[in-house]
Formats: sequence, C-alpha cells, structure tokens
Amino acid sequence: MNTFGRIFRVTTWGESHGEAVGCVVDGCPSGLWLTVDDIQKELDRRRPGQSHLATSRVEDDAVEILSGVFEDKTLGTPISMLIRNKDVDSSKYLAIRDTPRPGHGDLTWRLKFGHVDWRGGGRGSARETAARVAAGAIGKKLLREHKIDIFGFTTQIGNVKISESPDFEIKGIHEIIESNPVRTIDVTKARDMEEAVVDARRRGDSVGGVVECVALNVPAGLGEPIFNKLDAGIASAMMSIPGVKGVEIGKGFELAKMLGSEANDEFVIQNKKIKTRTNNSGGILGGISTGMPIVVRVAVKPTSSILKRQKTVNLETMKETTIKVEGRHDPCIVPRVIPVVEAMMALVLADQGRISGMIPEKLK
Amino acid sequence: MNTFGRIFRVTTWGESHGEAVGCVVDGCPSGLWLTVDDIQKELDRRRPGQSHLATSRVEDDAVEILSGVFEDKTLGTPISMLIRNKDVDSSKYLAIRDTPRPGHGDLTWRLKFGHVDWRGGGRGSARETAARVAAGAIGKKLLREHKIDIFGFTTQIGNVKISESPDFEIKGIHEIIESNPVRTIDVTKARDMEEAVVDARRRGDSVGGVVECVALNVPAGLGEPIFNKLDAGIASAMMSIPGVKGVEIGKGFELAKMLGSEANDEFVIQNKKIKTRTNNSGGILGGISTGMPIVVRVAVKPTSSILKRQKTVNLETMKETTIKVEGRHDPCIVPRVIPVVEAMMALVLADQGRISGMIPEKLK
Amino acid sequence: MNTFGRIFRVTTWGESHGEAVGCVVDGCPSGLWLTVDDIQKELDRRRPGQSHLATSRVEDDAVEILSGVFEDKTLGTPISMLIRNKDVDSSKYLAIRDTPRPGHGDLTWRLKFGHVDWRGGGRGSARETAARVAAGAIGKKLLREHKIDIFGFTTQIGNVKISESPDFEIKGIHEIIESNPVRTIDVTKARDMEEAVVDARRRGDSVGGVVECVALNVPAGLGEPIFNKLDAGIASAMMSIPGVKGVEIGKGFELAKMLGSEANDEFVIQNKKIKTRTNNSGGILGGISTGMPIVVRVAVKPTSSILKRQKTVNLETMKETTIKVEGRHDPCIVPRVIPVVEAMMALVLADQGRISGMIPEKLK
Amino acid sequence: MNTFGRIFRVTTWGESHGEAVGCVVDGCPSGLWLTVDDIQKELDRRRPGQSHLATSRVEDDAVEILSGVFEDKTLGTPISMLIRNKDVDSSKYLAIRDTPRPGHGDLTWRLKFGHVDWRGGGRGSARETAARVAAGAIGKKLLREHKIDIFGFTTQIGNVKISESPDFEIKGIHEIIESNPVRTIDVTKARDMEEAVVDARRRGDSVGGVVECVALNVPAGLGEPIFNKLDAGIASAMMSIPGVKGVEIGKGFELAKMLGSEANDEFVIQNKKIKTRTNNSGGILGGISTGMPIVVRVAVKPTSSILKRQKTVNLETMKETTIKVEGRHDPCIVPRVIPVVEAMMALVLADQGRISGMIPEKLK
Repeated sequence: MNTFGRIFRVTTWGESHGEAVGCVVDGCPSGLWLTVDDIQKELDRRRPGQSHLATSRVEDDAVEILSGVFEDKTLGTPISMLIRNKDVDSSKYLAIRDTPRPGHGDLTWRLKFGHVDWRGGGRGSARETAARVAAGAIGKKLLREHKIDIFGFTTQIGNVKISESPDFEIKGIHEIIESNPVRTIDVTKARDMEEAVVDARRRGDSVGGVVECVALNVPAGLGEPIFNKLDAGIASAMMSIPGVKGVEIGKGFELAKMLGSEANDEFVIQNKKIKTRTNNSGGILGGISTGMPIVVRVAVKPTSSILKRQKTVNLETMKETTIKVEGRHDPCIVPRVIPVVEAMMALVLADQGRISGMIPEKLK
Repeated sequence: MNTFGRIFRVTTWGESHGEAVGCVVDGCPSGLWLTVDDIQKELDRRRPGQSHLATSRVEDDAVEILSGVFEDKTLGTPISMLIRNKDVDSSKYLAIRDTPRPGHGDLTWRLKFGHVDWRGGGRGSARETAARVAAGAIGKKLLREHKIDIFGFTTQIGNVKISESPDFEIKGIHEIIESNPVRTIDVTKARDMEEAVVDARRRGDSVGGVVECVALNVPAGLGEPIFNKLDAGIASAMMSIPGVKGVEIGKGFELAKMLGSEANDEFVIQNKKIKTRTNNSGGILGGISTGMPIVVRVAVKPTSSILKRQKTVNLETMKETTIKVEGRHDPCIVPRVIPVVEAMMALVLADQGRISGMIPEKLK
Repeated sequence: MNTFGRIFRVTTWGESHGEAVGCVVDGCPSGLWLTVDDIQKELDRRRPGQSHLATSRVEDDAVEILSGVFEDKTLGTPISMLIRNKDVDSSKYLAIRDTPRPGHGDLTWRLKFGHVDWRGGGRGSARETAARVAAGAIGKKLLREHKIDIFGFTTQIGNVKISESPDFEIKGIHEIIESNPVRTIDVTKARDMEEAVVDARRRGDSVGGVVECVALNVPAGLGEPIFNKLDAGIASAMMSIPGVKGVEIGKGFELAKMLGSEANDEFVIQNKKIKTRTNNSGGILGGISTGMPIVVRVAVKPTSSILKRQKTVNLETMKETTIKVEGRHDPCIVPRVIPVVEAMMALVLADQGRISGMIPEKLK
Repeated sequence: MNTFGRIFRVTTWGESHGEAVGCVVDGCPSGLWLTVDDIQKELDRRRPGQSHLATSRVEDDAVEILSGVFEDKTLGTPISMLIRNKDVDSSKYLAIRDTPRPGHGDLTWRLKFGHVDWRGGGRGSARETAARVAAGAIGKKLLREHKIDIFGFTTQIGNVKISESPDFEIKGIHEIIESNPVRTIDVTKARDMEEAVVDARRRGDSVGGVVECVALNVPAGLGEPIFNKLDAGIASAMMSIPGVKGVEIGKGFELAKMLGSEANDEFVIQNKKIKTRTNNSGGILGGISTGMPIVVRVAVKPTSSILKRQKTVNLETMKETTIKVEGRHDPCIVPRVIPVVEAMMALVLADQGRISGMIPEKLK
C-alpha cells in the first residue's frame, strides 16, 4: 500500500537501484504557485553526500515535474514527479543477496514477496523517502499559504541530549537548525552529537537518536475523530519512515509518571484568544488540533548497515553464517531523516487541511 | 472518520450519554463460530466498576448482535453490535458545558463541530472504546484460528515500573495479568502500582502509566509497505485511543542511545526456523512481521478529569474561570485501557491478515 | 464492502429476517436539523404494503436514531439508525434453501460465503435498501440546504413507456409522481402501467421497467475526475441497487446513433448565466456537473421471485429440479425502487458536496 | 481522485500536451512475468493513427517501466509507467481557450479548477486513457494466469447494429475483431459501420456507437456486496471513460420490458457444473459473478470535437459566440475506446480477484 492520505493523497514508487524513484500527488488544490525549485530545495536537504556525516553515494536528486503544473501553477490534477537514480553501485549487494542483513527488512520482504530486488535494499531502502520529501515540499508550500511552518531538529544522538524544549517562536529557527551538520536546535550540543556519530563510524558501528518535529500556526480544528485523529495520522505517518520505532506527542512517555494536575494544560486567555498555559498535549486534544504548536518526537534506530561482523543465515543453505555490510551508509541517519519527518508532517496536515475545508479545492 | 481498516473494517458510533454505543464489523470472513459470549467476556474486562480502582458508573455493557451472525456462525456480512447506555447521569455536566475541562477534547470538539453533546464528553468520551472492544473480540477470535494470542499488561504506573521485559511464553500469562487489579505482569509490583492509583485518587488527582501489548505466533509477512506497514498501522491504532500519547515498537525510544551492533537482531536458526537472537525490533522489520513476538508499548496520560481546581475559560463570556471536575472517573485508566489496546492490536492484525490472504474470505 | 462514499460515508448492515437492518452515516456535518420524521417519511415511501401493487409483508419500518443527533441537530459524529424486522415469516424459505431461485443471488452468495442466511434472501434481500433510504434521507435534508431537489419516477413498465422527457421545473412535481401507484410522471400512462403490473401478477409472473432520477439545482463543479467522476459515482451507486442492470446519463444509449452535431449541448447565456441549450449530457460533462439538471435512468429487471415453475438445481444432490417461489413479493419493484434510487443519488451528491467543499464540515 | 481500486490499485496522471502521461500500479502480486512488450502491444491497439478512421496525431506511445519489475518479474511493489507526449501541437487550442467546446469538459473543468491546461483538453483529454490501457495490460496478464480472457467489440455505430449476440466461445475471436478497422465481431457489418464513420467525417461531423465487453472464465464468487458489487464496480469503471454515457450488464435496458419468466436464467447442470441456461444476467447475480461470461455494453457518444460551427460562450466577455473545433480528432472513438473498455474491465476483475483471494499477493 503505497498511497498516503484521504484527499491530499501521495503515491510513491521506486527501488533504490532501479531507474528512478518518484511520486504522484493527487488532491492538491489548483492555483498553487509551484516550481521545480520549491521541490528541489527540500530534496537537497535530504540528499546523500551533503555533509561529512552522510553516505558518499552521489546523487544530485534532480526532480522532474511531469504533470499537474502548468505555467508554474498547479492544475488540481495529479502532480507526477520523478528522480532518476544515478550513482548506482549494486556490486556490493550481489554477494549478500541470500544473507539478510540484521536490522534490515531483507528477510521479511523476501518472505512476503519471494522475488525481490536485492540491489541496495530495493524498495525497502530509505531511498524511497526522496519521493516523500518531494511530495512533502508541495504540502509545505500549501501550508505556508496558511502561515503554517514546519521544522524538525535533533534532540538526541546516542547519549547526547538537548536539555529542554526550546522556544519555537525565536527568529531564524530554520537557520539555527541548518547551521550544524546534526541539525540540532541546541547548538551547544552540536559538537558532541557530531562526535557521537563520528565515533560510531570510526568503530564501524552506527548510532540512533531522536528527532522532534514542530508545526506552528496550525489552526484549531484539524483531525478526524475517532480513527483519523490528528495524532493517529501523525503516528502512522512517522512510523512508516524507515528506522523510526517510536512516536510521541507532546510530553509523550513522560506523561506516564505525571499526575493529572501536572499533565493537564490549563486554558487561559491571551490576546483575546484561548490558549493553553502549558503544551504538554503537544497541540492535540481529543485528536483535534488546539491551535498550540504541534509537537512530535520520533525515535530513530541506529543505521542497520554496519561494518562489524554479525550473525545471519544463508537463505539458500539455511545455515548460520556471518555478514559484514559494506557499501556506503550514514553512520547515523538522524540528520537526514529530519526532512523526511517534516515531509510526513506536511502530508498529514495538508490532508487534514483539505478534509476540514481549511484548504479549498481551488485557491483564489 | 469512524472507520478503521481496509478489508476487515470497523465502524464505531455512539455518544457517552446517548442511547447506545456500537459498531459494525465488515469484512469478517464467513464461517467463524461466534456468540454473544465471545464479545461479552472482553467487554467485561473493560467494563466500569470492575474493581475498586475504576469509576463507579454501573454499566453491565450487555452487547446485542443484530446482524452478520446466523446459527452462531458469521455470514461474511456486516456484524452490527449495540451496547445500551444505562447508568447515565448528565447532571454534573450541565454546569460545566461552557467551561472546557483541561486535558479533555471539550474545547477542540466544540471549535470543530460547534454543536456538541456536552453530556459525559459525548463522542469524545472513552465510552466509545466499548465498541472497539466488541469489534476487537471478533478480531481476536479470528486470530485464534491461527493461534495468534494477544495480551496487554501494565509496565508502569506513575513512578512504579516493572524491572524488565518478561518471558511471554510462560503458561498462564493471561491469568497472571488478570490476577491483580492493575493488570501488571510483574505481580511483585502490583501492590505498589495499586497504591500509586489510590494515592492519586486520595489527593483528588490522577496518574498515568505505560501499557505493553504483545502478539504471539504472528506469522512472518504481515504488513503493507510503505504506508500501511504493520508498525504504522499499529501506531495509528494505538494513538487513536483516548489518553494515549506515545507508541513504541520493540525497544522504541531506547534505541536512540544504542549502537547498531547492540540494536540489530542477529538471525539464527532455531528448530529449523529462522529466528532473531534478540527482539529489539519488536517483531517488525521493514514494516513486515518477522515471526517473532510483536511488542508494542503505549504511553497513557493521567486521567484528565480530576477533582483539583484548574484554570479554564468560559466560552460564552470568554473570561478565565476555574473548574473542579466532578462525576465518576477512574483515577488511572491504565488497567481499563488494556482491553482497548488489545482490541486495537487485534483489529490491525485481523485486517493485515485479510489483506495478505492469511485469513481467507471464507473459513472452511 | 458495505460502506459507500469518501467523506459522507454510509455503512449498512442487516439481513432480511434477522433482528434488524440499519446503517451508520459518517461525515455528516454538524448543525443540521434532523428528526426521526425526516427519515421516517422517506422510509414510508419505500415501505412494503403501501399499495395494492406491493408485497403484503407488513413492516412499519419505524426507524430509531441511536447516535449522532442531539437536541434535534446533528453532531458531526456517526449517525446510527436501526429498523427492526417484524413481520418475518421464514417458513417458505426452509423448503427451498438448497434450490437457488433463478434470478436471485442465492447461488452466488452460497458459492462465495458458504454459510448463508437462507431466510428471505438474507443480506441479498432488497430489504437492505431500507437502510439506504434512511441514510439517503439525511443526504436529501443536507442537499436541500443548497436547494438541491431530487426526485425519481417511472418512465417504463413492461411495454408501456412515457412519450418524452417531461418539464422538470413544473410546480408540484413530487405530488404528481406520488399521485399514482406506479409513480410515473406522465399520469396519462399510469393506468396502463398499473395494468401491466397487475397482469403480470395475475399470471404468476413479474415485469421490469425503467426509473428516471433527476437532481435540480446541483451547482456546477461537483465530481472528481478521473476515477470519481460524478457520473462514475452515480453509475456505481445505481448499479449496486438490487435489480438494477443498466444506467444511463442524459440521452445515454440513444447517443450511439446520434451525430456529434445533434448530441453536443451548445452553450448559451440565460439570465447572465451559462446554460446549455439542450441537456443531452444529463448535466455532466467531463465527469463534473454543469449546473443543468442531473438526469439518470436505470433499468430495473422484473422481480426474480415468480410463482411460475422454473428449472433449478439442488445443491445437495447436484441434480436438476424445479422451483416455484412462494412468499410475498412485488410483481414489479419499480415503484418501490424509486425512493432507493433517489437515496443513492442523494448519497452521491452529498459526498461530492462534502469533497468539493460545497457542504462544509460544520453548518452555521 | 485519480486512483482506482482497493487492493490492485491504479493511479494515473498526465495532461494531453504536458510532458507525459503515466500511471502507478500498486498491489500487483510479486512473481508475475512482465515485460515492456506486454504493455506495448495493448497501447498499440489504442494508439492514434492506427487506421484511416483515427486521428492523425502521431504518437508511438512507447512505454517505459520505471519501477516494480526486476529481471522481467514483478516485485509486488508499485509499477510506475510513463509514456512521453511527442506530437504535441497546441497552436489550434490557443485561439479557443476562452470558448468552451460543446460536449467537452472545458467549461466544467474551468469552473471547478479555475486554472486549467487549455492545450489539447489537458487532463480532460482522452489521452489519459493511454495510462489506463498500460495498467490494464498488467491486469490482463494477471488474469490470464487464471485463464480469464477479456475482449471488446463494436455492436453499433450510428444506425448500424449487429443483429444478435455472437458465440463467444469460437476460436480466433480476437483475430476476427482485429480484422476490421471498426473492431466489430460481425464482419458482415464492418463495411457499413466504417461507412457510417467516413460519412460523418465527410460532413465535418462525428458519430457514436456501442461497445460490448466480455470476460470469459471468470470464476463464480467475485464481487463485494453491497457497495462494491461486481456490476457496481464495472459500472463505475466504464462510466469513468471519456465519452461513455451508459452501461448495461447482460440484457440491460431490454429487461425493462421482459417478464420475470423470460428474464430469469434457469439453473442447469452441464459437465457436472452448475450453469445457467441463458445468460440474461450477464454473468452477475446479487453483485457476484456466476461463472458464466461477464457481458457489459457501454454507450459511447459521438466525438465532441466537430468541424461544424456550434454556439458557445466566450468566458472572458460572457457573450455568446460560435466555435469550429479544428485539430485532429477521430470522427468516431468507438474503435479506439475498445482497448480502454477492456482495460477497465481488467482493472475491476484484477482488483476483485485480489480482494477475494483468487489472486494471491505472491505468485508461485
């Protein structure tokens, strides 16, 4: 099932070492100004080889828009986008095609589908997230019409955590995040996080982390109880990202040890509007946005591909063996997963915006 | 959006103080033995008033099956079920209908829908979960045909946590869990957890916790990458439950600080089958079940209704005021949310089972 | 698959001789005035026993609203409705449960589902359409807020046809249609049509017909190319009605023999608005409403249940045999199918209205 | 809404004079042998310029497969296909972009979307059906694994009709149909049909017709009552094709004048299997396939683009004017719509096959 959304719908396709990856965005309103640059700048943030922490695979990830846009404005028809795979080196994968890599979906995809594209992880590769980022870029553009601003940042890599939740309303927050290669918001921790990544790589290992994603200026009223609640949609979106194993909204797991009197966000009046004094709920109550910032955190596991020798099984001989996963991999995917997390947030909000009527089918 | 699932689909309906709550289960195969008792025994586990820790609202929650079953076997047609609301006392709610209760969806529902049923939280009340449990009971019955066993238990209430992950394969695990009012699997912690609940209530407060849910004997191959991955479906299902603010699969957030060499589950051969030595992935790789136990944990916030006075706003006067939420509430919903968590797990697995063909449209 | 629609969604359930039939309407906006009477008056038009042409099964078809409405206004939550089956006489069906009735779905349902409710056709009975009419009544009420008026009428029974398309804008068109038991718009043909029905019954036979359904004041712009075009949605809706075997929009099959210069509806200005001079397209161009009346015709086959002896097969012995279908049946379902056709039209338009934003999620 | 299907799902995209048209096929099982040739041969049957009756636009319609296939076998992942638009001549359309062509969707698309691609009809052009044919080719290949054979043919053009329903079981039926440029099954009528087309063109006019589509060897049991009945799905699929204004199953509208005793298909035993003596129901009873041939007929309107001068309205000045639609058009689309009708039939059956389990998610 490669389609996401009810009205603003995205269908993605493509294998890591196939011809291309791409997506079709359906249900985008007509009349939105949109150029390749809007898409490309987001893809560039996800692109491999962007920093010394990322894989050395060289992909310029140049996107083509094949339909749905005319004279730089969307038509309300499906927007088809395509990104060619260029720097494909499948040689490393041939040797290991019968020995599933621990932590990867190699085994489960093979059990489910039988015939698989073993080159570079095929469809199971995180390369598919380029298509999500392309689609998300349209979602973001659409949401900016409503002043909705989405950004993600690293709050933890390995044992290095930022101390507390930052002030989201400060100016230049996007620039601060992009100013360091780990994309953390607390620049005092950037160096330590970077070191955690470098250290893992040095040891032929990898390391995990946590990404926080925030959406500002989301109006109250988005979300469709009871099964398409805003938080349910976000949880599904985030958990579908390769490597993500946990999602929490607002205080999340910390709420487990809190009392109701601590956890509840009291209502107050600010500038003649109803706000909550705190935002432990992460901007969502009863599955519907409150008007406060939407705050989500996702747990990202350490990259599964590591140089250390691991136990596995040869699927042809059904005997135990070992594997050393060579190839070009990020020792920590946290910095590069951020644009993907943002994209998924944008897809959820754009869809909820369309469903609720906040975003009409035709822009003026 | 009150329907869940793609092939095995559940639509729920009903307000807390309306006539009834209920659901329609569509896509259940024909030929499944099913009686009211199969449903009722699950509802009894969720029922209010079952222990001294739960609300004193008295509902026998007797379910009626109105369609889809003939001669105690399912027909493959929609199964409609209905549970009357009986012990309805709306008096406490009239006074507070214009003052949204902190932590509840009162405000957001009102902003979204305008006209709301203010009695007992209306559709936003956790009473709707009775319908989920009824539907989930059918899912469980169906899954038991494939020896799939689902159970949930408390791992944390307030500051009391169980020490480590238990052995799921022990006999009588359902009985152990049901043997204590907090439904924990580590009975040595049951008393402390109970005390945490009682203590919160004594102070007119409430307390949160964590529930773990496990599904045993799920075959490899369930899950639909990339947007209906098994973990994405579970995350959505769990996050749609009232009070749940976090979901993690396997080691979840703990993976953030782990190295790849620690996190990866190595493949080994056991009894001529491929297993993983550890199960940090919680039985899901690449969005598809591995054949190992599915392990999910959800963060449950403290009950929003507390006796302590809290700040709020009067929506008619748009002035700040305070509120004391009377009525009958669980000081901790963790024990009663467990059957709901299990039900949602069953709905996800039954649906994925239908989609994958594991569960046919007609049982023999 | 017992759910219809994308945003305004209806799920129906129930077997002919089970406890009840009913439906859940999800995605109806909040704030719509709605009482049982709004539903009941439509059900009364579909009810058995309403004229000497209809089955003698006596059902008052009294509907209960169980959720989604509070203080006579919709809540935006699912509206659950229930109609008890009362005059159930299954005795006639026991004898023929292994000999499928020609023209009915008995055989195909049995092959598909194995275990079936053989009483009165079970879920395959046209009794399920009561639930559609109940749901459609809500759709109609919603559409009337936008002045959209839906009505159906008989254009043919057996060999008796009305001569040409009537003027839909005349006053009292609903009353004219309801003034004769066959519900034709051309009252000069009513007696002949009635006679065709009576004649068929006299011979232990049944007869088919054609129903036309019109929606006035549908604004231009409804429909979602290319797979949820307005006409595609209508076609699906109509063809799902028991006994319907053909659907045409506007001139339909007559267009096959026309030239383009005859078929094309030229655009003209009337009252400063763009209209078409003719309406051969039935109000739909490119899958989107034009603003002209939506005109649909459906072919209704003769009632399958007839007293004449027919060949069939005994499914237990797999030998040929014969059957005489006793029980209480309409010799012609055309008059009673009209409210069902209208209901399906209303469901399509209400859903398209919600999708397009014409109908918001909250009425003022 | 540009996606069709529930499990076997097709999303199409592309404007007539844009870069390309294409589609993504999701839910196709893994392990199906598939090459570009399988797709291309179907596209060649729909291609413009294939006979003297068709438009002179020259498109080789060469398809590229971008994903989902590896080593000539499907992967179970989305299959992305692309067909470049080459012989694009938009010059004729600039002059008429503000004067909607009668019979076309120009006006309704403009009212709905505001910003439109006026070149060659944009997304409203029948060019989008190339993508349907590409997707349908995969559906056909999949169905052939189950010996299901689909073919369409012309039964009427203008006033020329074939006399009666042919024998579908004769050998070489595909070759007979392809042997004449109008693709009729009754070759004795081919010349007259051809003449009807040529005559219309000679007069600067166009002509309509009827296409019948048959699927042989469809097993009993496909179809999902009550809203995704097999006939409802087919009706929706067919009515979504540009130019189609009517759909009938089996005897269709002829049933209106028949008696039940004539219309009902009696059950008999043939070769130890249950068959129906006649097939007035077109192979579908109760919304489920009977095992007899599926028989569908669609009414195709005359091509809307004609050289004759017609009335229209200038949307900028809102004044009446006239239009003469130049450009390259088929005077009768019936022959070229046949591969599209077949493709839609294949998509419906492939989806129902997947839903019912007839087609598994993994081929052996």
